[in-house]
Amino acid sequence: MLRIKLIGIGMGNPGHLTFEARDALQEADLIIIPDKGAQKQDLADMRRDILDVHVPHAPKVVDFPMPKRDAKTKAYLDGVSDWHDAIAQIWSQTIATHLGDHGTVALMVWGDPMLYDSTIRIAERLDNVRIEVLPGMTSIQLLCAAHGIPLNGLGNAVTITTGRTLRTYGWPPETETIVVLLDGETSFHTLEGALDIWWGAYLGMPNQILMQGDLSKIADRIVDTRAAAREEHGWIMDTYLIRKRDI
Amino acid sequence: MLRIKLIGIGMGNPGHLTFEARDALQEADLIIIPDKGAQKQDLADMRRDILDVHVPHAPKVVDFPMPKRDAKTKAYLDGVSDWHDAIAQIWSQTIATHLGDHGTVALMVWGDPMLYDSTIRIAERLDNVRIEVLPGMTSIQLLCAAHGIPLNGLGNAVTITTGRTLRTYGWPPETETIVVLLDGETSFHTLEGALDIWWGAYLGMPNQILMQGDLSKIADRIVDTRAAAREEHGWIMDTYLIRKRDI
Repeated sequence: MLRIKLIGIGMGNPGHLTFEARDALQEADLIIIPDKGAQKQDLADMRRDILDVHVPHAPKVVDFPMPKRDAKTKAYLDGVSDWHDAIAQIWSQTIATHLGDHGTVALMVWGDPMLYDSTIRIAERLDNVRIEVLPGMTSIQLLCAAHGIPLNGLGNAVTITTGRTLRTYGWPPETETIVVLLDGETSFHTLEGALDIWWGAYLGMPNQILMQGDLSKIADRIVDTRAAAREEHGWIMDTYLIRKRDI
Repeated sequence: MLRIKLIGIGMGNPGHLTFEARDALQEADLIIIPDKGAQKQDLADMRRDILDVHVPHAPKVVDFPMPKRDAKTKAYLDGVSDWHDAIAQIWSQTIATHLGDHGTVALMVWGDPMLYDSTIRIAERLDNVRIEVLPGMTSIQLLCAAHGIPLNGLGNAVTITTGRTLRTYGWPPETETIVVLLDGETSFHTLEGALDIWWGAYLGMPNQILMQGDLSKIADRIVDTRAAAREEHGWIMDTYLIRKRDI
């Protein structure tokens, strides 16, 4: 029997790993790490840094090549589904080569596997495996902690959404606070009204950047800051929270 | 200068503490723990269990009496604000008595201080303190991990809300998934339609209870299970996720 543990590792800061996650990494027979090419080498390195800190005598650690998503030729959801099939196949091959059909495989998942991540859906495509999910710190938590703010207004609802959904549907009605993830297009530009933004990039890391204020006043500054940081590091992961202002 | 660290500790399982949180507890000069009376002694004990596991040589650990919220005489928000004032005053007294005006105080916050928790708002009432927030595992993450499910549908938004808000406003429009916290009144009973529920109590603990299925079929069973568990333990903390079913 094969067991797969999908282990949330937070956003790169080894201090945000849980004891449970550390133990699971230590006890795994095989750890597989996606190789997304030279451009995202930083991200693979950050996984290895976490292992160096917490599991210096790690078991077998193996890279697997991450297939590219075909974003052009198909409807969005079909393209994603094909892509997940392709990743599941590569996982199977990598596991068969390096472990066989018995033992425990660990995958280090950025943030938490439950939040805008596909590892659960990909793992469910494999036959004869037992899946276990271990939570990890999300960018939402690190954003709020870094700014020292609550996620929700007192007793109020919060909507978590993506840049794509925000651009398509606008501000969700009856919501006072939104958090936007996966937004490569700084979609806060599409919003109007009396809104405050709390933005953060590289959260929890030494190069963390935080900005906050009146959205209408600092939106352009965030766009510029984001572009410059992305240029400097070759990649960026950022998140933001926007709240309606009390008037 | 006084520093206050608001440290998320998860839902009681010592394995869900982060290394950062452990270090902060270890380095604090004073740890203050709310005493909510005999009925909730379990919760205070769980905090002490986490200290026993991770910080066996803890610095000074002191209980403070938690004032009761006056739920009768005022508008909801006014009552909450007065209550927060009262708690802030007790924190000040407890810190002055046991530490003075210099050093680091740690508060162990259930879950994550950002999520439906008031410690950030209370801490902001204190004068001359530097506040630092450390994230902890939320019940939402533990619920999804225990059931092995993603929080969001592929690319879709999620609304996090309370039982009170759900009862007042109903299902948030244009949302496919909701997570409900702080719901002592099993408000899922007010929902209709093709919905699936994933429910959990005492998440991450040995007495964890999980139920899932068609909401219309298992709602009553969850209500009964919840009531029996609450009777047995004297308290309950539960959370649930509801998703519109694909038809």
